[in-house]
Amino acid sequence: MNNSSKIGVGVVGAGRIGKLHIEHLAQNIPEAELVAICSLDLADVTSVAKQFNVPKTTSDYTTLLADPQIEAVLVASATDTHVEISQAAAKAGKHVFCEKPISLDLEQIDETLAIVEKAGVKFQVGFNRRFDASFARVREAVASGEIGEPHIMRITSRDPVPPPIEYVKVSGGIFLDMTIHDFDMARYLIGDEVVEVYAVGGVRVDPKIGEAGDIDTTVITLQFQNGVIATIDNSREAVYGYDQRVEVFGSKGMVAAANPPIDTVTFSDSEGTRAASPPYFFVERYKPAFLAELQAFFACIQERTPPPVTGADGRAPVVVGFAALKSLRENRPVLLSEI
Amino acid sequence: MNNSSKIGVGVVGAGRIGKLHIEHLAQNIPEAELVAICSLDLADVTSVAKQFNVPKTTSDYTTLLADPQIEAVLVASATDTHVEISQAAAKAGKHVFCEKPISLDLEQIDETLAIVEKAGVKFQVGFNRRFDASFARVREAVASGEIGEPHIMRITSRDPVPPPIEYVKVSGGIFLDMTIHDFDMARYLIGDEVVEVYAVGGVRVDPKIGEAGDIDTTVITLQFQNGVIATIDNSREAVYGYDQRVEVFGSKGMVAAANPPIDTVTFSDSEGTRAASPPYFFVERYKPAFLAELQAFFACIQERTPPPVTGADGRAPVVVGFAALKSLRENRPVLLSEI
Amino acid sequence: MNNSSKIGVGVVGAGRIGKLHIEHLAQNIPEAELVAICSLDLADVTSVAKQFNVPKTTSDYTTLLADPQIEAVLVASATDTHVEISQAAAKAGKHVFCEKPISLDLEQIDETLAIVEKAGVKFQVGFNRRFDASFARVREAVASGEIGEPHIMRITSRDPVPPPIEYVKVSGGIFLDMTIHDFDMARYLIGDEVVEVYAVGGVRVDPKIGEAGDIDTTVITLQFQNGVIATIDNSREAVYGYDQRVEVFGSKGMVAAANPPIDTVTFSDSEGTRAASPPYFFVERYKPAFLAELQAFFACIQERTPPPVTGADGRAPVVVGFAALKSLRENRPVLLSEI
Amino acid sequence: MNNSSKIGVGVVGAGRIGKLHIEHLAQNIPEAELVAICSLDLADVTSVAKQFNVPKTTSDYTTLLADPQIEAVLVASATDTHVEISQAAAKAGKHVFCEKPISLDLEQIDETLAIVEKAGVKFQVGFNRRFDASFARVREAVASGEIGEPHIMRITSRDPVPPPIEYVKVSGGIFLDMTIHDFDMARYLIGDEVVEVYAVGGVRVDPKIGEAGDIDTTVITLQFQNGVIATIDNSREAVYGYDQRVEVFGSKGMVAAANPPIDTVTFSDSEGTRAASPPYFFVERYKPAFLAELQAFFACIQERTPPPVTGADGRAPVVVGFAALKSLRENRPVLLSEI
Repeated sequence: MNNSSKIGVGVVGAGRIGKLHIEHLAQNIPEAELVAICSLDLADVTSVAKQFNVPKTTSDYTTLLADPQIEAVLVASATDTHVEISQAAAKAGKHVFCEKPISLDLEQIDETLAIVEKAGVKFQVGFNRRFDASFARVREAVASGEIGEPHIMRITSRDPVPPPIEYVKVSGGIFLDMTIHDFDMARYLIGDEVVEVYAVGGVRVDPKIGEAGDIDTTVITLQFQNGVIATIDNSREAVYGYDQRVEVFGSKGMVAAANPPIDTVTFSDSEGTRAASPPYFFVERYKPAFLAELQAFFACIQERTPPPVTGADGRAPVVVGFAALKSLRENRPVLLSEI
Repeated sequence: MNNSSKIGVGVVGAGRIGKLHIEHLAQNIPEAELVAICSLDLADVTSVAKQFNVPKTTSDYTTLLADPQIEAVLVASATDTHVEISQAAAKAGKHVFCEKPISLDLEQIDETLAIVEKAGVKFQVGFNRRFDASFARVREAVASGEIGEPHIMRITSRDPVPPPIEYVKVSGGIFLDMTIHDFDMARYLIGDEVVEVYAVGGVRVDPKIGEAGDIDTTVITLQFQNGVIATIDNSREAVYGYDQRVEVFGSKGMVAAANPPIDTVTFSDSEGTRAASPPYFFVERYKPAFLAELQAFFACIQERTPPPVTGADGRAPVVVGFAALKSLRENRPVLLSEI
Repeated sequence: MNNSSKIGVGVVGAGRIGKLHIEHLAQNIPEAELVAICSLDLADVTSVAKQFNVPKTTSDYTTLLADPQIEAVLVASATDTHVEISQAAAKAGKHVFCEKPISLDLEQIDETLAIVEKAGVKFQVGFNRRFDASFARVREAVASGEIGEPHIMRITSRDPVPPPIEYVKVSGGIFLDMTIHDFDMARYLIGDEVVEVYAVGGVRVDPKIGEAGDIDTTVITLQFQNGVIATIDNSREAVYGYDQRVEVFGSKGMVAAANPPIDTVTFSDSEGTRAASPPYFFVERYKPAFLAELQAFFACIQERTPPPVTGADGRAPVVVGFAALKSLRENRPVLLSEI
Repeated sequence: MNNSSKIGVGVVGAGRIGKLHIEHLAQNIPEAELVAICSLDLADVTSVAKQFNVPKTTSDYTTLLADPQIEAVLVASATDTHVEISQAAAKAGKHVFCEKPISLDLEQIDETLAIVEKAGVKFQVGFNRRFDASFARVREAVASGEIGEPHIMRITSRDPVPPPIEYVKVSGGIFLDMTIHDFDMARYLIGDEVVEVYAVGGVRVDPKIGEAGDIDTTVITLQFQNGVIATIDNSREAVYGYDQRVEVFGSKGMVAAANPPIDTVTFSDSEGTRAASPPYFFVERYKPAFLAELQAFFACIQERTPPPVTGADGRAPVVVGFAALKSLRENRPVLLSEI
């Protein structure tokens, strides 16, 4: 088999998401050739490389970027390294798939997007949920006019368990590490821009989250340019599992995506009828979506088309997140133009 | 208020079903004037009459039939009195609403239908489930061709608790006291006649039912003239409540009616999602259908139209029941023409 | 039958809701004796009285209040007459069931509640949805701690069709004629008081509603004393029918009430599976709740207990409504203490 | 990477199922080393081998069996070759995974099982549906006593489109090519043996199927040793898609597995609520189950445990199938002991 037509890939970062990408690249993306993995934890990365037959490992991403076999780089390292690595990769002429958020600093994002633009490489941001079949169907229903003019949107997004407090301290806060997905989903489903944000919230799940300067329960109201009003509600802890639902209501009807149960079994007894829980967390729920976003990334490289999630798509929800934070702190609606 | 345009009604029998009819007549059928109630238990009937403002009570049904104010009679007494009272009522020129089954004796049924025919009065049999909105919608879907040619039908019919053993001993057995409703439902939904029956069953719920000569669990296969194959499954005891479902599969699709839950509430926790049980038993589930069958009865009197459930409809499922009994005993399919 | 133990009732107002109450009183509340109906439209009220055997009719509510047979009065007339009639009825020593809202004027409400208090009569406000079995079950789940500490609540409430523009002009606006039910539901489900309100909205359904000075689409965020954050979304026009759902999320799970379909029938064909719509509008959906609120009213009279929906319950959502209006106009969160 | 610990595998047959197994072996079974593929269509198999990096191809299965690298053989060729290849593979000391049915000839099955037994190799039959998560959960509920003593089981199994008439002519008929899966499912879920079978059926979908000597619509009643009564209904054409549902009713409750929709999206409009269809056919629906059965096969080789679907499990449903055929032809219940 001639592998020369394959796209050589390097992955930087081998945490939970990094490993998932590595698995998909090794097993399910025939057009990709996984050449090298980079991680600070060399022991760990060596074992992963062995498992998936990846020829090269390194703890220095510049080594990886210097490899001429590598045409595309997946950046799945810690958030505060995204910008540096993405910029270096772009400058090295590699296509970049960067996990969200690009950065917690808008200037750095803008700088990165400018470098990418100049380099003429593909730059896709890892908003995997857009590739979930149900959410994609909802977007299609909105975009095609099936539900008429959209008026109201509701997004529910609740995690099964809070992240470690150490993560909370550096994540940028709930709006930038968790709600950012929902801000992206909101823009994706409505196909329009947010103009104003109002956020309320509190510490209901764990006082330690409050001590770390964050909240764990929030409800955000978004107003779009086209008049749609959206609410997002988040909790760091839903005991029944990962709760990811959307609903868009419009002049001709409503479209909604529910949680998929892990099986289709129901039990009926004197207590009523019991159905299964949703998948535990994001890996279980969005594995097909994580795969699909990679497939789309390689397709846009091969077909020379724009990536389905652009740098601008990576920037916009960060802006909404800052507006939400400002709204929460000042207890007033905040225009995006204020950020 | 001028009541002379109302239809004077007498009710014979004031057991559970009789009382339900009395309540509906007193409260919800403005075109009926409830004139008299007859029951062997005069103390009981006096209290019911007081509750619903019924002017006359008697323990002798001939007294009731002699009342010129009474134009229509509801026969809700013990099964073995249906024929005698229905025949006398018809001979007295009264319209008759008779609970199912008309009789456990085909000759007596035929005799009754002949008398009714000769008297020119309305005769409606109490197959209340036909008036359930969901089942009526299923029938409409079949009759209108929405699902194309029907091929396969499934009926599930399970009671929450077995009847008293004393009742089991005189009821005619499960096919004639319980499945008879499903035989009627089968004919109603398909709009065609059964030609062959195969029944299997056993005693799984309570050995006492077996000692009384009956079974408590059965599965029956019906073949219709038009080629539809149907199965009915029955149990005397479903711990999760009254289970009444139908499904018709055809060349253009499938239509099904599920159990209605008693409320629309769901609970989600780490065990999954719990929804409500169905209504407890037939009164809770079919109260609107019991009312609707009476409304239809009075409408057919006023509008001089045929009753929606005819004497022939009352006879047919008894024949199917006898065929099922013969099939069970002889462990072979039995043609209806053998009965 | 001795009717002297029954509670004599007079109904003022015979519009859609008035007629529904009259029907329930006449047919389904055995402890009530419907003595008189009052309406400005004497021809209409005469026909209703005839239909339900109500002995007296009048177009002057003072005549009705002067009737010594009447112990309780149902006020179902136009909103701007609620206060005058309720006050007069209380002064006449009658128990009062008053439709919502008591008034659009807080001073008048307070005056009325003071008069009722002084008169020592029962005063119940017509928040019928509290008596819906599903919503009552949700409240029970919250109150009993089944879902732990409540954190987030979502209420969706959308009408199938907008009211006439003439009604919009005098109704007090969407917050006081429509959302008021949801404000009550919010207080009822959480069992706590709202402290801050933020409302956004617009005219999406019909420009005439905007010309009449109202909005037709709104999303409201409520913050409760106990920390619960709630959102309510309203639309004047949901083409799929009356949409009335609630969801409460807490530390131990989630409880939700969905729309009941009008039947349990599903169709499966190459387009997917189709299920039935919800009941058309409030009469179809809440008929059992309208009956149950009356039963509760007469029970509290007979058992000398406080009414389940008090005058204070009638006042509170009006305050929330004014806060919502102020929030919408000033585009900022408004404390209830500002009203 | 040291592949010497991997199990060398050869696949015989590269039709639809064969290709699916090849894909799974190449991508998702790290403990397997796919060494060779055998197919009569060498051009086709060469392209598949190239796609999945399989080093060897052949059109002669004896070549494959002679390969010392190969420890396990997957037999996915035409049904009438299963016995010859399985026997030869077992004699060559290879573990065998054989697609269903082993054969349409009971003597050949018995001969094969004897040879396998003597050879001491693993022999697993491809009843993939046992590995569906929902059906496995139903079986667990039955086996663990969650629903008490099982009484009644219903299996619905309908294909989206009929197979080609050429296939119908050689498949052994609906009972042996289609219902055989349901006979296996019935045994699997109940964990007991069928003693009597009654089958009815007809040609409702396509007269050509009748001309080929088969039926396309059937309902079968099974009686188990332990008293459970089961019905299976089959159609060759369900326009709404692949319909695969089971329900087991017992003394303590009911457990059921529904069809999974392809997404969780619902649309609500004036026609009602629409949900998604089930996956199109067996590959779409059972892909994870096809993978899981292979994983179980390699696990039983590595762990030296019995295969989860044994040769006896492969034989039993063939016997039930013959009994069903006899029942249909003779229109009477047939004991399995008659076969």
